[in-house]
Amino acid sequence: MYKKLVVVMSILLFISCNEVPTNTINVEDIQQLNSAIEGAKPGDEIVLANGIWKDVQIKFIGKGTKEQPIILRAETAGKVFIEGISNLEFGGEYLEVSGLYFRNGHTPTKNVIAFRISPDQVANNCRVTNCVILDFNQLQRDNDDLWVQFFGKHNQLDHCYIAGKTNGGPTVRVDLKGNQSIRNYHQIVNNHFGPRPRKGGARGETIQLGSSFTSMSPSNTVIANNLFEECNGEVEVISSKTNFNEIKNNVFYMSEGSVVTRHGNYCVIDGNYFIGDGKNENIGGIRIINTGHSIVNNYFYNLIGENFRSPLAVMNGIPKSPLNRYNQVTDIIVAYNTYVNCKSPWQFGVGTNIAQKDVLPLSEIRSARPLRSVVANNVIYNKVGDTEPIIEHDKADGVLFKSNIINNQGVAFKDEERITPSSFELTQVADYIFLPIGISNEIEPYNGYGFEAISEDLFGNSRANSNSIGATIQTEAKDPSILDKKKYGASWYSNEKPAYEAVTFEVTNATDLTAKLTEARAGDIISLSEGQFVVSKSLVINKSITIQSSSNKKAEIVFEGANNTPLFELNPYGILTFKNVVLSGNGTQQAFASLKENMSNHFGLFVSGCEISNFNYVLKAYKQTFAEEISFTNSAISNCENGIELSEETNDKGDYNVEYLTIDNCRFINVKSNIVDYYRGGYDESTIGGNLLVSNSTFENCGAKEVTNILLNTRGIVNVAIENNVFKNNRVKLVALLWGAKNNSHSNNKVQNSGKILVEENLKMKLMY
Amino acid sequence: MYKKLVVVMSILLFISCNEVPTNTINVEDIQQLNSAIEGAKPGDEIVLANGIWKDVQIKFIGKGTKEQPIILRAETAGKVFIEGISNLEFGGEYLEVSGLYFRNGHTPTKNVIAFRISPDQVANNCRVTNCVILDFNQLQRDNDDLWVQFFGKHNQLDHCYIAGKTNGGPTVRVDLKGNQSIRNYHQIVNNHFGPRPRKGGARGETIQLGSSFTSMSPSNTVIANNLFEECNGEVEVISSKTNFNEIKNNVFYMSEGSVVTRHGNYCVIDGNYFIGDGKNENIGGIRIINTGHSIVNNYFYNLIGENFRSPLAVMNGIPKSPLNRYNQVTDIIVAYNTYVNCKSPWQFGVGTNIAQKDVLPLSEIRSARPLRSVVANNVIYNKVGDTEPIIEHDKADGVLFKSNIINNQGVAFKDEERITPSSFELTQVADYIFLPIGISNEIEPYNGYGFEAISEDLFGNSRANSNSIGATIQTEAKDPSILDKKKYGASWYSNEKPAYEAVTFEVTNATDLTAKLTEARAGDIISLSEGQFVVSKSLVINKSITIQSSSNKKAEIVFEGANNTPLFELNPYGILTFKNVVLSGNGTQQAFASLKENMSNHFGLFVSGCEISNFNYVLKAYKQTFAEEISFTNSAISNCENGIELSEETNDKGDYNVEYLTIDNCRFINVKSNIVDYYRGGYDESTIGGNLLVSNSTFENCGAKEVTNILLNTRGIVNVAIENNVFKNNRVKLVALLWGAKNNSHSNNKVQNSGKILVEENLKMKLMY
Repeated sequence: MYKKLVVVMSILLFISCNEVPTNTINVEDIQQLNSAIEGAKPGDEIVLANGIWKDVQIKFIGKGTKEQPIILRAETAGKVFIEGISNLEFGGEYLEVSGLYFRNGHTPTKNVIAFRISPDQVANNCRVTNCVILDFNQLQRDNDDLWVQFFGKHNQLDHCYIAGKTNGGPTVRVDLKGNQSIRNYHQIVNNHFGPRPRKGGARGETIQLGSSFTSMSPSNTVIANNLFEECNGEVEVISSKTNFNEIKNNVFYMSEGSVVTRHGNYCVIDGNYFIGDGKNENIGGIRIINTGHSIVNNYFYNLIGENFRSPLAVMNGIPKSPLNRYNQVTDIIVAYNTYVNCKSPWQFGVGTNIAQKDVLPLSEIRSARPLRSVVANNVIYNKVGDTEPIIEHDKADGVLFKSNIINNQGVAFKDEERITPSSFELTQVADYIFLPIGISNEIEPYNGYGFEAISEDLFGNSRANSNSIGATIQTEAKDPSILDKKKYGASWYSNEKPAYEAVTFEVTNATDLTAKLTEARAGDIISLSEGQFVVSKSLVINKSITIQSSSNKKAEIVFEGANNTPLFELNPYGILTFKNVVLSGNGTQQAFASLKENMSNHFGLFVSGCEISNFNYVLKAYKQTFAEEISFTNSAISNCENGIELSEETNDKGDYNVEYLTIDNCRFINVKSNIVDYYRGGYDESTIGGNLLVSNSTFENCGAKEVTNILLNTRGIVNVAIENNVFKNNRVKLVALLWGAKNNSHSNNKVQNSGKILVEENLKMKLMY
Repeated sequence: MYKKLVVVMSILLFISCNEVPTNTINVEDIQQLNSAIEGAKPGDEIVLANGIWKDVQIKFIGKGTKEQPIILRAETAGKVFIEGISNLEFGGEYLEVSGLYFRNGHTPTKNVIAFRISPDQVANNCRVTNCVILDFNQLQRDNDDLWVQFFGKHNQLDHCYIAGKTNGGPTVRVDLKGNQSIRNYHQIVNNHFGPRPRKGGARGETIQLGSSFTSMSPSNTVIANNLFEECNGEVEVISSKTNFNEIKNNVFYMSEGSVVTRHGNYCVIDGNYFIGDGKNENIGGIRIINTGHSIVNNYFYNLIGENFRSPLAVMNGIPKSPLNRYNQVTDIIVAYNTYVNCKSPWQFGVGTNIAQKDVLPLSEIRSARPLRSVVANNVIYNKVGDTEPIIEHDKADGVLFKSNIINNQGVAFKDEERITPSSFELTQVADYIFLPIGISNEIEPYNGYGFEAISEDLFGNSRANSNSIGATIQTEAKDPSILDKKKYGASWYSNEKPAYEAVTFEVTNATDLTAKLTEARAGDIISLSEGQFVVSKSLVINKSITIQSSSNKKAEIVFEGANNTPLFELNPYGILTFKNVVLSGNGTQQAFASLKENMSNHFGLFVSGCEISNFNYVLKAYKQTFAEEISFTNSAISNCENGIELSEETNDKGDYNVEYLTIDNCRFINVKSNIVDYYRGGYDESTIGGNLLVSNSTFENCGAKEVTNILLNTRGIVNVAIENNVFKNNRVKLVALLWGAKNNSHSNNKVQNSGKILVEENLKMKLMY
């Protein structure tokens, strides 16, 4: 009898202790939400009604418990839209937000989601899950903000989809200023970081962990199981700037940047996938600065980046570096990684700039080579042999190489002491995933100091009993489904758009052109009939659209709009493909121009087969505007005052107005100022930017009024190629002034009566930091 | 029956698992020792025979286990003397050394005891216990070495007595270069660090944890329960240069230096005693640089140091400091400390040198004030009120002050917002230990971020239930016996010498003088009878000795030794007190001189009531020699070529030849070069050195041949006072060139026909780092 009683009592006790009474509070507007938050107790669930919540600044302050958090969620996940001037801040303990969709707006503060209310009121053990932040950009690029900013400790961002940031500032940042935020163990897990467009300058990281000013602090932040898809904001996808962070089991897919241990030490980069396309040199791998990092169990596929963007870039440091510059690399471990079809995957002494010592202060000279570091137990496979699997920009004499092998298809290379040639083969286990087979007995794994921590392989198999070199031990491997997007981000959101069949609008007059431009959807085509279109007001381009002549005979647009207005006004998202049309103005207007301000998203321009004449500017891009690509091909430009104007980013902070500018097979006649004015200012090797190709074109009688006396002005642009052009009778001193130390080149140009092409090895630039 | 069987079996099993068979191997010489080591197995005990082991380099290589270490010990602890050119190196696991006495020698390498054989063969879990290292100095001061150097992990130095290091290099250093030596958790516990004499320059720390080059690495070294007695080597007693070190429950007794967080971050300095004498300004406390340190539960008594040596010195940093310079202080906690009779115990902005910006590069300017730091729950008691308990060399505006109280005896001070006046009293619980009583309800302890880690008080009482401000909670306190030397160091060694009654030797002729000098013991007195002593060979001074005239009529020593030899040859340990004697030479010799080399220990010289004439040098100190004190008082010096020559330390690394030089009530006539030539070179604020007092003296007809044209040449000496002197008819341009920015002063001097005394505010010095 007693026994039974005890059992019953135990059960009762168990229930009473584990029961989590939930109190649901439905709210329909910010006032109701505020009072619900004010009264919330552990276990409460505040439910936001579906619909658009405009201009709401939510301060989620409360104190839940581990067992009974306070929850703030969408009535239906994904159906609560946070729009307008809105944001969300946390203060307290055990608070959780889910199901919100931030879009069509921006934050009034410096962050969309912040894990604090004030320095004295931070969040601990709080969570954002199953939310989306999309294109929630400030109107101006230089208005920096952060979309998620961590403070406090033990906070979590998981299962969110975050994409489309164009303005300055990392998408996510962990802040460590103050003892309230160190040893934070924040979790950034299972998210889908969707495309972040190229920003055109610095401050475009997807995740930044601390800053140089807190680089001495232990952060212990975990970034795991996320998908980074086309995170192209800048040269760093993840910038780890504090200590003891873990970057684990993430997929970096076609992302133009690297995981960089920019500051701080003892970062673990373990079991990640870096997937490239074998063509795009901007897709990076892992770049190492500082001390004590472990780069283990990673898989690199089809990466062809060089230098800063190489699969493994080990930098030179500045001796006794200032706090915010480049410390020497010491005590790093690069072990058990697999490289498949990567070009020169290991690069050492990256960033050495001893040659620039005449234009840089001593405190900028990276001459300190890596010390006490080990590269061991790695496997390299090249479908096509690589004569330089290791590139030493400066000597790697402080690095110990042990038990590395390569299948180089028998092609000779000079580092056989460091990497042993082998003839193992690969087996494909999934798209992009090829694993070495038959290397079990090939070579004994090296066991260095600190290697005991590498207990598992890429897939989580134990290395204890059947260890082998490379990212995976030699066992049956299953498809890791790294690109199964259901594993990442918000459950209710997918960035995979159904295929759209473009509609073609046939247009016969200017009124119709304007109307159809409004009516058309992104991707549609507007086809101009033969004849003249007299346009009297700017045409707004605010989506991807193609405008072209419908027949072989080019349509002709005559612009009669006001002075200093553009024929095509390029708005945010406005990407114009313009083909086979004749354009003319009255000499005072712009053929193409961005908005002067509020360019909250990028524009783009592709002009081909056109004839453009009598404009003040062919293209005018204003400050804080950005295009990923602009091209002029097979076109003739004549009798304009100015050419292609992309020179307003004079803050010398590394910004510029276009990533890729291409001029091919064009003819410029009588453009009175310079043809191209393309500027990027500020010296720091990590801001790698601007690309100009000018090829197969003719330039005649241009530059007569150009005050700089340079026809193609590219000051500060890192990648410039001028090839196979003819320059004739242009009244300038220089066709171009190129930056020899960077990737600037010229070849096979004919220059007659047009000054010359000058190469200056080292340009003196303003230091950015 | 079965039950009994199980019990018996269990007991048997227990015994068999815990039995540690010991195999004792007695060795009598290094060959036997080497073979014993070579064959040693876990549990073996190698016993060194009592006696002197000369010129032995012991490489203790082996692999013991936690349960069965390999032990190497003295037959009788303290009776095995390691002498000559000898050292000890460890390589392996679980090795233990005990009972050895290192004396009368020095190491042939860079360390006396090293926890490694080579970078690839370090020691882990090894121990040195119950040993002594005494005066085991290199022959030359600039031959730097370390007496105990840690590598590897989990090694321990405990219950050792270590004292007397005079040459360059910290006494103990933990080395972190390489992953084999990080997160080392070494234990330096229960040792007695006996007197380390002033070194006369940098590199005289007692313990150094890492270096700036490894300042990013986690060390986790523990320094606990040690006694530091008169550790006067330099301005830093402990220099913590890595992360996460703990300095706990140590006693710093009359030590001229501070515990300094020189590099690295998150050091815990908890429950230490800092005991001064209320007179010596060189006895320091805790000096803070960098981030995240906790200074809690410490007790400070009778400290009157200023600036770098103040009880709490919080430094200004260099903005974005180079790796080896001064980082800004951020996120530190100074809480629950008690200060009794300390002068201006809290000093902020220490090291600010904005005023020196004309003579220093920008990368040396300490202008970055502390940020995000908290000073809370501290108690200050002043027997005599202090008008400035806080000194702000630069503003402490980044520091939060909370719940601090002071009994200032009603004396007004300006910081009552930061420290609340109170009238609590003290109770004495032991020598030097006075604790506040009756403050339980005075003020609520502030509870800041990170304060939860402060769970106990100075005595280990829990703060959980009866917390109060100050180092100790308000409970019955027992005598902590902090100066009971039996608690520290080797069990068989005491540095407390029995009182010695000096013997006086009466001497009547030169032969006897030489003989008695040899015969006398340290502390003895040699008394010269009236009359002349003609000495033809240098008299060797190699111990503390007094030579004086026995009657009021001064004895007269006439030196007829060879040219360029000294009458008194000051050897290592030679400290001469010389009173009331008339000395003369032939104009080519030295009255006093150190050895030219091999001055493995310091000398000293106290001259009073003497008449010295016709020497080449009055005193000649050679390079790499050092005296803690030199004084000339009530004496007359005439007709010499050179005066007091202490100027050979021209390496500009901060070294100098004497700590305190005093000239009082003397008369210098016809000294042809300068009277004093005293040099210290190299700029770094942390090398604070050299003291010259020249007072109440007369200088006449001197300096005629002096090439520098300065009579008292003190270049680089930090503390200089020239007071109440008469300078007459000296053929020099300057009596002295003083350094205004340092502690150089002159007052009340009469200068007639002798040039002038010039003060230059900022001397341009060579940077040391």
